[in-house]
Amino acid sequence: MPERIGIYPGTFDPITRGHLDIIERGIRLFDTLIVAVASNPGKAPLFDVNERLEIIGGEIKKYKSVRSESFDCLLIDYVKKKKASTILRGLRVMSDFEYEFQMALTNRKLAPGIETVFMMTSESYATVSSRLIKEIARLGGDVSGFVTPAVEKRLREKFRKNPGVAT
Amino acid sequence: MPERIGIYPGTFDPITRGHLDIIERGIRLFDTLIVAVASNPGKAPLFDVNERLEIIGGEIKKYKSVRSESFDCLLIDYVKKKKASTILRGLRVMSDFEYEFQMALTNRKLAPGIETVFMMTSESYATVSSRLIKEIARLGGDVSGFVTPAVEKRLREKFRKNPGVAT
Amino acid sequence: MPERIGIYPGTFDPITRGHLDIIERGIRLFDTLIVAVASNPGKAPLFDVNERLEIIGGEIKKYKSVRSESFDCLLIDYVKKKKASTILRGLRVMSDFEYEFQMALTNRKLAPGIETVFMMTSESYATVSSRLIKEIARLGGDVSGFVTPAVEKRLREKFRKNPGVAT
Amino acid sequence: MPERIGIYPGTFDPITRGHLDIIERGIRLFDTLIVAVASNPGKAPLFDVNERLEIIGGEIKKYKSVRSESFDCLLIDYVKKKKASTILRGLRVMSDFEYEFQMALTNRKLAPGIETVFMMTSESYATVSSRLIKEIARLGGDVSGFVTPAVEKRLREKFRKNPGVAT
Amino acid sequence: MPERIGIYPGTFDPITRGHLDIIERGIRLFDTLIVAVASNPGKAPLFDVNERLEIIGGEIKKYKSVRSESFDCLLIDYVKKKKASTILRGLRVMSDFEYEFQMALTNRKLAPGIETVFMMTSESYATVSSRLIKEIARLGGDVSGFVTPAVEKRLREKFRKNPGVAT
Amino acid sequence: MPERIGIYPGTFDPITRGHLDIIERGIRLFDTLIVAVASNPGKAPLFDVNERLEIIGGEIKKYKSVRSESFDCLLIDYVKKKKASTILRGLRVMSDFEYEFQMALTNRKLAPGIETVFMMTSESYATVSSRLIKEIARLGGDVSGFVTPAVEKRLREKFRKNPGVAT
Repeated sequence: MPERIGIYPGTFDPITRGHLDIIERGIRLFDTLIVAVASNPGKAPLFDVNERLEIIGGEIKKYKSVRSESFDCLLIDYVKKKKASTILRGLRVMSDFEYEFQMALTNRKLAPGIETVFMMTSESYATVSSRLIKEIARLGGDVSGFVTPAVEKRLREKFRKNPGVAT
Repeated sequence: MPERIGIYPGTFDPITRGHLDIIERGIRLFDTLIVAVASNPGKAPLFDVNERLEIIGGEIKKYKSVRSESFDCLLIDYVKKKKASTILRGLRVMSDFEYEFQMALTNRKLAPGIETVFMMTSESYATVSSRLIKEIARLGGDVSGFVTPAVEKRLREKFRKNPGVAT
Repeated sequence: MPERIGIYPGTFDPITRGHLDIIERGIRLFDTLIVAVASNPGKAPLFDVNERLEIIGGEIKKYKSVRSESFDCLLIDYVKKKKASTILRGLRVMSDFEYEFQMALTNRKLAPGIETVFMMTSESYATVSSRLIKEIARLGGDVSGFVTPAVEKRLREKFRKNPGVAT
Repeated sequence: MPERIGIYPGTFDPITRGHLDIIERGIRLFDTLIVAVASNPGKAPLFDVNERLEIIGGEIKKYKSVRSESFDCLLIDYVKKKKASTILRGLRVMSDFEYEFQMALTNRKLAPGIETVFMMTSESYATVSSRLIKEIARLGGDVSGFVTPAVEKRLREKFRKNPGVAT
Repeated sequence: MPERIGIYPGTFDPITRGHLDIIERGIRLFDTLIVAVASNPGKAPLFDVNERLEIIGGEIKKYKSVRSESFDCLLIDYVKKKKASTILRGLRVMSDFEYEFQMALTNRKLAPGIETVFMMTSESYATVSSRLIKEIARLGGDVSGFVTPAVEKRLREKFRKNPGVAT
Repeated sequence: MPERIGIYPGTFDPITRGHLDIIERGIRLFDTLIVAVASNPGKAPLFDVNERLEIIGGEIKKYKSVRSESFDCLLIDYVKKKKASTILRGLRVMSDFEYEFQMALTNRKLAPGIETVFMMTSESYATVSSRLIKEIARLGGDVSGFVTPAVEKRLREKFRKNPGVAT
């Protein structure tokens, strides 16, 4: 059997408890799982790609078969370069479904040999989105239910330095 | 029985017939209902927060138990400050549901003692959104079915002064 | 202020932790909350209406302002007879929304003075439905996460007596 | 690495091109994939469980790592008995999502170690449901786009013998 | 230009104000519009096919280009027999969409030359379904907002004769 | 019978195989079909309105009854000016539905005599959106499955000249 490599792509700005939940669930499916950080230069993320990789690194070091990388090309080109053939995505709520459906079928059209598999995020994290977490953190709210203590600290530092930063 | 205070939060840029429909329906649930205007400095509203309060004031003065205020913090912090424990929201269409669901569960996580209750907007206003109304008004369309005459006049003045204003 | 009476209608065949969650959240809105059991003769429930009332009675006796009754007419006629004007319903998932929307607007058409208010079920109970619980119990599964111990005992007795009963 | 066993459960009454599409896509995820036929005695299927197994057998014999079995207990009990820990399900359309979400989270509650993974059915089969196919076949329509020739023959035989059979 | 014939299929058990709304809107698209009543023997309708045709006849006689017929085969076979090539359907709410999408794409697969066009039902009738109307009428409720006086009279007669009839 | 004129409005930035699919299907409904390009100055399109008209012109010249124009006013005012009374729109996926529902009911409120009719895009194009296509083209991906060769060439030229252009 060839090695099963899974790619878990996202912006991870920053990584949430919901993302980590999917990583833990996804480990069983793959010999190696790569958390692939889209650099997305157009989107003006709160954390730059190196900060995001550093944050993820701290969270995943306990998993032997998981590692993290960034990419700045089409996802399917990155997947091919890694000699992987499976993309992992989490589904939280119904509205995710249609976007994910569109992305998965588009990627299948662009690269028929690459498949997307989905896992359900724990219902405890069903309402956790990076965008919402940043908005709460910016307004001084408690995000400890949504991110790990390390990420919480990073968010606090980011907004202390620059309280007006757009989220 | 302690006083039942309800908070009806929103951007109200501007207040629509759909919002007023929810206020009328919500009155029965609360001894006092506060229309809470999010100042949302990041969003570049068409009407600034004082204009929005002024417009709302004109519409709600006929309701004895309703008043209006602005807030610029996390909604749950504002709710606590008012010693309220219930948030009122209107549901118009299915896509509202998932966003509202996410917000209500997030707020419940941040403040377990605060609840959100929902009422259905009249089907006559199911398609009324502030964003769409502003777009129609900007292009010179008739918005009298969506807002009161006073709000219609405000929209007309706003776009007469500055026809190129972004909506 | 007149007494605020809320009606929480359903089949409750049997009452679940999700239903009890809504009752606890709804208490704050009403001076009196009536759990109204639809006798639904056409639906062939697992528990007859008296059994369902008995089960509910055991669960709600700790709440001073909550009581239970059955009805076998149009819901709005029952609501009027109780001199209530507000119906309480729980929303769990997106598909609930459209059904509830249809029922609420239909009831509003039949009786414009009666309103429906909605609360969100805790995400822990988002997947709990009476139908599914009965199916799991029938196949000998553990339903303790979905119903109280008293209801679990009832389900076990029901299926022990008649393992082939349709669910 | 222990053997990865996947369970693909369903009623398969009868198996469609959409089901076969998911099987082909799922093969890559598992060392062994078991197509698990729910006997569902309550549902009055068109084909009895032995016929369904026989039909599936003919379709999957070309896949070395796929086999078929029936089960008549709770799915999670069957999964445990097979020493598997992953359930495979196909998603076709948005309405599937909510049902599947409910089932997956319920199964996770009943058996936290068992996960469900989802794959998207090819858009060519997005509208294929066993129920609809049976209705078309009963009315003499051409179902060759939805099932294999062998299944088509079976449907024709079934409805020739008993044109009035309920679907 | 050949004659444009549209087929508006349904069970119409009985025809509602929502159906009549679609007929009025659809007239403009076709030289002839045929209201096609599915006899659906399996479904045990409240009104038999002749009663349904008679009721529809009374409602549509004012429209010169509309007539009514029944059919008991696959819809696309009926459409071909009428030398029509367009099916008209109404959309009321979101959940209609997915069912209609599935039917339209299935019919397109079975008969690529036949198209389905959709129109939106007036929001006043968005919550009107034949099933719900029958349930309200059976319980003695006022259905005058949902059906014409003639249909209301028919429903009253039907339930007076046989109050226990299943709906 | 007066001439039946249909208006197919959109941004068409650029026109996709999905749009062309709807045009081909829509031809049967109208004596004349006008592809109406919204100039949308606020949205910063990739192709300016003249480029979009030129691209569409190349694609539709084979259809005798189809022509293309731009408009920069409210859609319903444009429809009235063309003495048309029917708007054609394509539906691809469920999330389209709610937006289209809102637009159609809003336009009906603004101009009761104008109707919107919908057709289903072929499932082959269900995931094709102009936004996604531009993103793929910008990253050097193969968009030949989503647009015609002429449009593909245009996209390549646009991104060769200015690889950093926002999409």
